[in-house]
This record gives sequence, C-alpha cells and structure tokens, in this order.
Amino acid sequence: MSLSSEIPIGERQIREAVERLAPWIHKTPVMTSRTLDERAGASVFLKCENLQRVGAFKFRGAMNALLLLDEVAKAKGVVTHSSGNHAQALALAGSLLGIPVTVVMPHTAPAIKQSATAGYGATIRLCEPTLAAREEAVADEVARKGLTLVHPFNDWNVIAGQATVAWELLDQAGPLDAVVVPVGGGGLVSGTALAVKARSPQTLVIGVEPERADDARRSLASGKIEPSGDPRTIADGLRTSLGERPFAVISRNVDRIETAGETEIVDALRFLWERLKIIVEPSSAVVVAPILDRRLSGEGRRIGAVLSGGNVDLGPFFESLASRWL
Amino acid sequence: MSLSSEIPIGERQIREAVERLAPWIHKTPVMTSRTLDERAGASVFLKCENLQRVGAFKFRGAMNALLLLDEVAKAKGVVTHSSGNHAQALALAGSLLGIPVTVVMPHTAPAIKQSATAGYGATIRLCEPTLAAREEAVADEVARKGLTLVHPFNDWNVIAGQATVAWELLDQAGPLDAVVVPVGGGGLVSGTALAVKARSPQTLVIGVEPERADDARRSLASGKIEPSGDPRTIADGLRTSLGERPFAVISRNVDRIETAGETEIVDALRFLWERLKIIVEPSSAVVVAPILDRRLSGEGRRIGAVLSGGNVDLGPFFESLASRWL
Repeated sequence: MSLSSEIPIGERQIREAVERLAPWIHKTPVMTSRTLDERAGASVFLKCENLQRVGAFKFRGAMNALLLLDEVAKAKGVVTHSSGNHAQALALAGSLLGIPVTVVMPHTAPAIKQSATAGYGATIRLCEPTLAAREEAVADEVARKGLTLVHPFNDWNVIAGQATVAWELLDQAGPLDAVVVPVGGGGLVSGTALAVKARSPQTLVIGVEPERADDARRSLASGKIEPSGDPRTIADGLRTSLGERPFAVISRNVDRIETAGETEIVDALRFLWERLKIIVEPSSAVVVAPILDRRLSGEGRRIGAVLSGGNVDLGPFFESLASRWL
Repeated sequence: MSLSSEIPIGERQIREAVERLAPWIHKTPVMTSRTLDERAGASVFLKCENLQRVGAFKFRGAMNALLLLDEVAKAKGVVTHSSGNHAQALALAGSLLGIPVTVVMPHTAPAIKQSATAGYGATIRLCEPTLAAREEAVADEVARKGLTLVHPFNDWNVIAGQATVAWELLDQAGPLDAVVVPVGGGGLVSGTALAVKARSPQTLVIGVEPERADDARRSLASGKIEPSGDPRTIADGLRTSLGERPFAVISRNVDRIETAGETEIVDALRFLWERLKIIVEPSSAVVVAPILDRRLSGEGRRIGAVLSGGNVDLGPFFESLASRWL
C-alpha cells in the first residue's frame, strides 16, 4: 500500500465539502491593498477567515465533521478538547444542527473563552491543565456516553472542511504562485495543501509558524513529529504541535516552512490593524510577517495568504478607553 | 433668487465628481453582517470608508477640490487648517498631483498627526491653539503666497467629492430606506444628502452626532448655526461645528438628526471591532449606535450607514502588547 493511499482526502472529497458547507458558512471576502502590495513587492490576496462565523476558519472543519456523522452519532453528541476557536466553532455548529457538544477545557482557560463556548450551548467539562487529564476526560466522555471525538485537527473530515478555504481563495483570486498559511496543529495547512495541489500543482504551499513554536520545520527536517513543548509565543493559536494526519499530508504536499519571530509577528499585526484596518489575531499576522519582509517575493507575483482568525481579547483596550471617556 | 439656487451641487456635479475621482480613490466595499442585522432588526449595509486612502472619506473631497483648480492655482499650491483626516487627505492628494500643500495646525496637535501629514510631503505651519491664530495663519498664507484655501467642509467642491460616497453606496447596495451618516463640520452629511435626494428622494437621510456635540440638532431647531464650543467627546472627528454651506444643504435635505451618548458610542465601537473585526474610529461608531439600539428600525428594512474612517491611535495598545511579549 502506498503512502498516498492513506490520505483519504482528494479533489472529490474537497468538492463535496465545499457543497456541503455552502449553506452554513460565510464565503469570506478576499482583500487586497495597494499599501501591502508595495511593501510585499507582489500582489497579495488576503483570504479573510477572520470574518468567518465565530471569527475563524475552524467553523468549516467543525461543521463538516458534524454534517458527516451518522444519525446515531448525531443523537449521542460529540466531544472535543480546546480552549480556543475550535471549541466555539464546534459549539456553534452543534447548536445549529441540534447536536449536543461537550468541550473539555483546562480550568485555567480564561473565563471569557469558557463563557463564549457555553454561550453557544455547549457543555463545558473542566479538567486539570495537563495533557493526561485532558485525554482522560475526553476518553471518559467517549466511553461512558458514547460521544464521538471531533479532534481540532487530527481528523480527516475536519481537514477536508479546512481545505475549502484555499478552494474558495483560488476561485476568488485566480491563479496564484504561492499560498501562505499558518501552521499550528496542522489542520489548516494540510487542508490547504490538499486543495491547492489538487487544483494547481505548480502553486507553492508555504507554511509559517512562530520561531518559538517551530515544530513543523523541525519535524519535516527529521522526518518525524518533533513537538514544541509549551512554547511562549503571542500567536496563541499556533502553540499546538502537529498531529499525525496533518504531518502525513504536510510531508508530501507542503513546499516550505518559514518562521516568524515575535517582533515580526507584532509588527505584522500592527500593520494589518493600522494600515489595513482589519482585526486579525496574532496567529494570522504570522503569515504576513515574511510577506512584509519580502522573504517570499522570489515566489512570484501573486501570493495568497490565509488570515485564519480575528479573535483577540480587546477587553483591556476598551476598559482603558472607557476609563478615559465615560 | 430662491434658496436652492445657492446650492451649486446637483446630480450632474456629483456624476462628474464620481468620474473625476474614479482613477484616484478606492471604490470601498460594502459590508454586511448577519450578527449586525439581528441586532438591528433590519438589513444594514456598511460603506467602509475606513478602507479609503488615508483611512477616511476625506480623501474624496480633498482630491476633487484639487482636481478642479485651474493651472495657476495648482502651481501656487493650497492651504488648509486641520489636525485630522482632512490634513492627511489633502497632503496625499497634493503629492499625487504635484500640488504644494501647506497645513496649518495648532502646536498642540499630536506629534503623530504632524508627522503623518508631513510624511505625505505637506508643509506644516504651526500656530497657537486658538481660532483667531489659525485664521490669521491661513489668511497670511493666502495673502502672501497666493495659496488657495481648501476648507475641510465649507467648500462646494469638497462637498461634491464627499457626495460620491453615498452615490457608490446606492450603486452597491441597491434601494435603501434610509442612509445614516455622522455629522461633524457637515461635509459628509451634506454631500450624502445631495446624492441621496438626487437619486432616491424617498430615502431618508439621517445624521447622527454625539450628544455632547449636538450643534446640528440645535441648529436645525433654531434655524441658525449654534456652535458647540469645544465639546469633550470621544468622537474626535465630530467636535467641529457645522459650516454655513453644509448647514444650507442640511436644512433642506436631511430628514432627521439623531444623537449618541458616549457610552453608546464606545459600545458600538466595541461591537464593530469585536464582532465585525473592522477597525473604525469613534466618529464612525456614532452612526451604528442608534442602529444597534433599534432606534432606526422604524425607518424600514434596508439601512445604509457610512463608516467614515478608521484612524485610531493604536500606539498604547501595541506598546502594551510589546511590553508583554517582546
């Protein structure tokens, strides 16, 4: 059996996911900017998944996974572990489809994340902030209640859902020389690679991760998953290390991994907020950092980049504003 | 002579401004949001002038005024007084057309505003922070150097330029029951009123201003301009009082003035940043406040709203971020 036969997501599965998701997701806009193009030395097409439902691409994968469950599984419900965008995405998808959702979160997760997820109707199960405690809690929900695990990224149906981002981008932007995406657990980058290589094999797929969470770069170099521990990066969505399924896809379909330092990430974030007037989260700014540095300008004149999400805690900013004005 | 003959901007002048500006401006997108529509109880079409060049609609009026100068006036150059978006708009327009621009600013204007304007190649002339000092400085530039004054709002060519915002909005959004715009000096609201009433007389034009800077409301009630002094509102673009020409237009073409309190403005700002993921300035949030409160839902199902600009000082936010992460 060849390695590629282990990857069950091809053009057909992605096309089906595009159709399946169409009634549920936002077809997010692609933004261009003269200022950005001048800085980049290329035409840059920003796929604005910060404008997706729940403010992140994660809604696509979660929704696709739920729509593909059989009726028995739908009735019993699903469980996941996440304190980030996947938790809210799955919670919203479940509430739209009437599927019960349980989310395992460490009790150290910010109250705002817990209440946002509970606000979509999910049941929150808190656990100790360790990997072992999390896995035990999930296994317990699966064993005792018959829930189906919807993993944030190590799940083929989730990956097929994330693949629809790049599929849409190619429809909207036309031919691209390269597509740049952030690398966290690998759901988005692997879906992107499958979509891009299915439709446009000559288009480069470039993953970008924080220097401080460069497990994809190290894993591709060594040929096996090299986790990052608990990296301290502002790009909170990219602290996770690669899953096995994404790694299998990335090994064969991603052309290059770039990294971005923390200062570059903050500079790119500020550029996107101040000059492009869009709220994105640091994990999205990561892909724009090497574009602003012209590290990708050798990759051709037309570059697509996925702005993965826009969920940032603006509480402190607005509290300070309120204290000055109200 | 009838009053209306004093207003030299009609459908023809606006159409000409649309054509004249087309090669220079961004045709800004119109954004919609399910979340906003649910809150509003109406379909809301947001005209994103925060994505205009220099981050504000002001570029339209400034560019239109410069394009209409004769060759002698172009060679001598122009002067204005502003420490806000009009200063940067005129500076960029002048630099694109090779027209010298002098901007009179109080020496108390933030260094960031001075350097942004100078960065577009304008000459900055500082003056004492009083109306008398400002008028004297402008008069001096006009008398000694033969510069042409391009007033931020009390100028028909500027008003015709601002009218192109609503003209585009009607093209993009289709028929609207009401168009809502912020009211500061009155350039945008008067241009909007002229454009909307020329094309769609039954569409209501509603101006919104901060409660603390409610000179338009008071002026329309008394029939003469009632300035606001130096109002302390977070909506810094709307502290100016109405000019005479905008007042003449507004008196006849604006259906209603609404006001927004400071808390409502901050709440609307937070909604736009957090939920819609767009950076707008407080002056733009002012128009969204009565929409979120459903104060306009009686005005029909389709409401257009102009988000006038996106220039906010994000320095403190990014300094705090950098101090935590870098």
